[in-house]
Amino acid sequence: MNFGFLIFPGLEDLDLVGPWEMISMWSKHAAGPENCLMVAESHEPVISENGMSINPHVSFSDCPPLNFLLVPGGQGTRREVDNPALIRFVAREAEHCHAVLSVCTGTFILHRAGLLTGRKATTHWASLDRLRALGDVAVVEDRVVRDGNIWTSAGISSGIDLALAFIEHMAGEKAAGRIQLGAEYYPSGRSYGMMHELAQAPMYVKKWKTQEE
Amino acid sequence: MNFGFLIFPGLEDLDLVGPWEMISMWSKHAAGPENCLMVAESHEPVISENGMSINPHVSFSDCPPLNFLLVPGGQGTRREVDNPALIRFVAREAEHCHAVLSVCTGTFILHRAGLLTGRKATTHWASLDRLRALGDVAVVEDRVVRDGNIWTSAGISSGIDLALAFIEHMAGEKAAGRIQLGAEYYPSGRSYGMMHELAQAPMYVKKWKTQEE
Repeated sequence: MNFGFLIFPGLEDLDLVGPWEMISMWSKHAAGPENCLMVAESHEPVISENGMSINPHVSFSDCPPLNFLLVPGGQGTRREVDNPALIRFVAREAEHCHAVLSVCTGTFILHRAGLLTGRKATTHWASLDRLRALGDVAVVEDRVVRDGNIWTSAGISSGIDLALAFIEHMAGEKAAGRIQLGAEYYPSGRSYGMMHELAQAPMYVKKWKTQEE
Repeated sequence: MNFGFLIFPGLEDLDLVGPWEMISMWSKHAAGPENCLMVAESHEPVISENGMSINPHVSFSDCPPLNFLLVPGGQGTRREVDNPALIRFVAREAEHCHAVLSVCTGTFILHRAGLLTGRKATTHWASLDRLRALGDVAVVEDRVVRDGNIWTSAGISSGIDLALAFIEHMAGEKAAGRIQLGAEYYPSGRSYGMMHELAQAPMYVKKWKTQEE
């Protein structure tokens, strides 16, 4: 089994590495996919939104057939939706993938590849209106949204929750629990400045409970 | 201001990129440190525990003086505690840094650099006994532990909470809240398999509340 992580210039770092960590742990400690691969258009280093320089494992032309594909978001997605090579790659792999997942504004890449028409999906809270404006997506203000074999998630850090929900779906609650404990993913649950109550916060965030409550 | 992130073979990916994301957002959106730099022993690509290949920005010999230094954990720390060049670098930078931070088993690197004797600190739950066995550290079973200008945190994902607590300390609750909202860090708060109640879970995890409660 091959789990591919699409990388491109201007991807948001944690969008990628949150799920990368969880899926890699699944692979190593709980019989997940054998190969976790970062795939880019070419073999050149990819510079993320925050300046991290990553060497891809494979390029579009030498990538083995993928069983799963995850697409991160970031400012770079605004350019990459108009990159025919990248959109073709996503559409091509989606044809035989068991599941395609995106984090944050990676949703817009899935949409351009034709994967979201008539589907439920979400994205970063600040891009929800832009997703609604596409007109053919049923936008859901939740942290993780599944519609068949297409999984999308909210902003940046939500990819961690997406990955755990996906692992539970594929391998059961116990496997997800082992990864959660291994990664010690029991967040502090503080809301700094109680900004989760802001008017522009998405529905699920407004209902979020701090550990103090 | 220069914020350095130490990288070495076998570092745990999310230990690094969780705080890297939060500190980079602080830098870009809330007047944090101008430069966020990944620093390694040489300019060669660094391969993480999960196989991510990262190109360092600077090496020990051409790294500008750091104001802050963060050390991730990972299996690689078990080798790097015996790497004199790396330990010397950490000790040298710590002399003039405003703060030194570690995630997960990065704690053992800080200890070998002489930064933890007689101090409060923490690490990944599965390494707490190993930290206690060092004999000169006051081990605390909390997610984020501060002792003066030394900050340590629990396992893998805890670096995100460490970074937010550090940003609050440096720049106030509003700045931390802006980063939290930007990164949409309002985790689902699920406990898969309720494994946080296991006997071996650290104290703060046993008290952790799921969003369902």
